Amino acid sequence: MNKIYFTPGPTELYPEARRDIDEALKNKVCSINHRSTEFMDIYKNTVYSLKKLMNIPDDFHIFFLSSATECMDRIIQNCSEKRTFHFVNGAFADRFYKTASDLKREAAVVKTDYGTGFNFSGIEIQNDPELICVTQNETSTGVTIDPQNIYDIKEQNPGALIAVDIVTSAPYVKIDFNKIDCAFFSVQKGFGLPAGLGVLIVNAKCIRKAEYLKSSGAGIGSYHNFLTLLENAEKYQTSETPNVLGIYLLGKVSDYLNGRGIDTVRSETEEKSDLLYGFFERNTEFTPFVKKVSDRSKTIIVIETGNRQTEVKKKLSDNNILVGSGYGKLKESQIRIANFPMHKAEDVKRITEILS
Amino acid sequence: MNKIYFTPGPTELYPEARRDIDEALKNKVCSINHRSTEFMDIYKNTVYSLKKLMNIPDDFHIFFLSSATECMDRIIQNCSEKRTFHFVNGAFADRFYKTASDLKREAAVVKTDYGTGFNFSGIEIQNDPELICVTQNETSTGVTIDPQNIYDIKEQNPGALIAVDIVTSAPYVKIDFNKIDCAFFSVQKGFGLPAGLGVLIVNAKCIRKAEYLKSSGAGIGSYHNFLTLLENAEKYQTSETPNVLGIYLLGKVSDYLNGRGIDTVRSETEEKSDLLYGFFERNTEFTPFVKKVSDRSKTIIVIETGNRQTEVKKKLSDNNILVGSGYGKLKESQIRIANFPMHKAEDVKRITEILS
Repeated sequence: MNKIYFTPGPTELYPEARRDIDEALKNKVCSINHRSTEFMDIYKNTVYSLKKLMNIPDDFHIFFLSSATECMDRIIQNCSEKRTFHFVNGAFADRFYKTASDLKREAAVVKTDYGTGFNFSGIEIQNDPELICVTQNETSTGVTIDPQNIYDIKEQNPGALIAVDIVTSAPYVKIDFNKIDCAFFSVQKGFGLPAGLGVLIVNAKCIRKAEYLKSSGAGIGSYHNFLTLLENAEKYQTSETPNVLGIYLLGKVSDYLNGRGIDTVRSETEEKSDLLYGFFERNTEFTPFVKKVSDRSKTIIVIETGNRQTEVKKKLSDNNILVGSGYGKLKESQIRIANFPMHKAEDVKRITEILS
Repeated sequence: MNKIYFTPGPTELYPEARRDIDEALKNKVCSINHRSTEFMDIYKNTVYSLKKLMNIPDDFHIFFLSSATECMDRIIQNCSEKRTFHFVNGAFADRFYKTASDLKREAAVVKTDYGTGFNFSGIEIQNDPELICVTQNETSTGVTIDPQNIYDIKEQNPGALIAVDIVTSAPYVKIDFNKIDCAFFSVQKGFGLPAGLGVLIVNAKCIRKAEYLKSSGAGIGSYHNFLTLLENAEKYQTSETPNVLGIYLLGKVSDYLNGRGIDTVRSETEEKSDLLYGFFERNTEFTPFVKKVSDRSKTIIVIETGNRQTEVKKKLSDNNILVGSGYGKLKESQIRIANFPMHKAEDVKRITEILS
């Protein structure tokens, strides 16, 4: 029997991906010129389908980069000159913060214990940041942030741009893009595609900031600065030869998800996460790491397994189900179960049965 | 009948690529964790096979980035603080130069007319550069530089690092890596793979420069600075989730090329380029753009077609052979024919027969 990957990403491919890749190869999608109308049509379809799926307003731009990590780098470079602020609730939020420090920004930070959400009402943002970075769904800990809290941060800090990491919550998460400035994800998570493509969604305010920085002589980078990205995106092209196959496949998966309907995908995701959290709530040995129900991610379910982690992982893998380990210092005492649109309810049910 | 892409890249896939991709999907290569031993084994094999193929010394490091354009960006950032020097003989050399300017370096330049090589003995490098950038094979014009000229530049400028763009000459080009400091290419050219992976090859002097820059407070970037890249490469890992499939396939194609033997691949390349240049030399209407024989690229053959370009391209495409247009201002009066290891002599012969 075939293995099923419930890892946080790279993860199980979307069921149709293998057929789509073969179709793409047959049609020589990987040989076409990235300045050709064939490529531009692929680009257009992917942007159209993704905007529809995630309800991204027309006036937002979609840029194709190589990873979510690259998105962090380019956002810091193009949306801030001196001061950033970071909500750090895990390893990936910390990477965003570290990226700002590496790029010589005065990066201020508020941290919370791993596995715990923020007490937003008690947080004061004092360094007058140009950019505030929030990790809406922390892949390392399984802590999620209600988007309303992010909208509130923006309202309270009208002078700052808000960047939102939705790496492992897209396309499930329902974001009102009019209340944020940019967001990003990579395709090897919720979209179930081969790694090597990051997607950056930005509004006109981000572009204006990049323009301002450039005109004031600040460095905004080279081929992937927002202005060069935009100049190419407006022609349905990219600065460099991109991951053409990745862009093509993202359009395909977005089409499938649009076919299923995002509301259906969302309610299925919630049913599956209820099944998992419910099971582990009742379980006496293995318990959800995130205690507060409203902080729990629907797409990354982190379970404390104590010293029985190897045994749990083996039991699942003997049944051809692969889950992730914990992250960082929690690597050996937790498992992480991804719950993405390609993961089937019946397989989620099997996880609970195997561990019963 | 199937179309054959003789475009400069993206180009025809390596014949085994489709089967290898299917095999990879069957074995769930796109779902494995990029910190797992499975991934590390893939990484190791690719580095081993590529080093063998291109005779890259053991003490050089191989970094996997997302494109050749990204390689330019990271080289400028990590190998120079203030002053770079560029040999510009076409659009891609110009991109390297522009990247340095975008990154606020004082970039000095020597230019030559498109289609013409440099008169190296007459060039004085006066700005005491930390980094000298050479495009060994200019994809836009089909002009090549004999590596000996590059070694001479290095010998005459012992204080500078030498970076060599071998984007469309790898793996054909025979480089003595001990006489340069870094080189880079992308996989959608001579290796015949889907776009989305850049390969950067650097020696210890480049690493030391990055260390020096970092310690002196200069910015060397974030997740893809040479020190972070090296830290991960030493573990056979990458900073971020990389294009795992691309790295896997690059190892496979390198294995095939090693099986054929690089000397065989080289002499086959030369036979095919002789066939093409010979034909166009004898042709009265369509002539090689690069007049001096020693300046002619063996892998990118640029032909002047005047106002008959559309007709020529159509005649070839009616026979299922696709070639590239000229580049930039020469877009409509030239064709570019790639001559990579996956291009068969019999198909090259057909090009000459169709145009006879």
